[in-house]
Amino acid sequence: MGFFSKGIQTMDELFVQTLRDIYYAEQKILQALPTMIEESANPGLRSALEHHLAETENHVRRVERVFDMYDAERKAVDCPAIDGIIKEAKEIAGDVDLEERGVLDAALIAAAQAVEHYEIARYGALIAWAQALGREDCASVLEQKAADKKLTEIAESEVNAEASAA
Amino acid sequence: MGFFSKGIQTMDELFVQTLRDIYYAEQKILQALPTMIEESANPGLRSALEHHLAETENHVRRVERVFDMYDAERKAVDCPAIDGIIKEAKEIAGDVDLEERGVLDAALIAAAQAVEHYEIARYGALIAWAQALGREDCASVLEQKAADKKLTEIAESEVNAEASAA
Repeated sequence: MGFFSKGIQTMDELFVQTLRDIYYAEQKILQALPTMIEESANPGLRSALEHHLAETENHVRRVERVFDMYDAERKAVDCPAIDGIIKEAKEIAGDVDLEERGVLDAALIAAAQAVEHYEIARYGALIAWAQALGREDCASVLEQKAADKKLTEIAESEVNAEASAA
Repeated sequence: MGFFSKGIQTMDELFVQTLRDIYYAEQKILQALPTMIEESANPGLRSALEHHLAETENHVRRVERVFDMYDAERKAVDCPAIDGIIKEAKEIAGDVDLEERGVLDAALIAAAQAVEHYEIARYGALIAWAQALGREDCASVLEQKAADKKLTEIAESEVNAEASAA
């Protein structure tokens, strides 16, 4: 974004720009998740992150489908937000003593939740804009179930309690 | 984070570190909101952002209160996630033609939703950790109502429809 600014004049262009932003973001999430899975100790957390990885692969394909449906070039544009979220995830995971598995798991859950919430916000906007643009077909492809609830359940039921008791 | 790594060994330390992260984030949000308010044209959006600004001032005070209750030093640590989210908000707003007020409003709503969702994720983790640590007193100070629903309502009822029709 921002090369020769003022490039966005219509909702149509805002929609495509944001689609390119989330296309970049999903690819960065795809790259980041395997390390998070490796670092996680709790089986429930590991399986939730593996599920997120499989979901992310689907997200990438769905975004590509929407590019095609919308007759827009499949292109990723830099997304400083996801770069920042992933950088922070790596920093906090890097700060936790590797022997304190429960604490590391709790940090990984929080990092995954931040990623999820970024996706919820972006897809929420994209779906609302697709609907406003009369493109229910694109909106329905972009619909997704938030996985945050599952992470929160794991956090509350197991990881945080174990880590605090340790 | 990350100066002399492996500094976090307990949930207690993870909680304080994340409190310092959100303390930094809230201050950055405080700095960013006035420009977003100035740029917004829709009265409902402007009032929602003004409400978010007032809420953010409260958040800063509440986080400071939790530092004191927890007997931890009030300190902000760099939060690359919020830096990235705000950088992206500025870029997208800067890319929209200023005469296309409806499109700019839609971009501002999406930016505000990304900020809100970051807060939801971080406070969600902090509250869960405070509870796991047996600090219900801190958890209850950190409880917050998500303002995203209000932004979504404005987006769906007015801004997106107006901008798409323009």
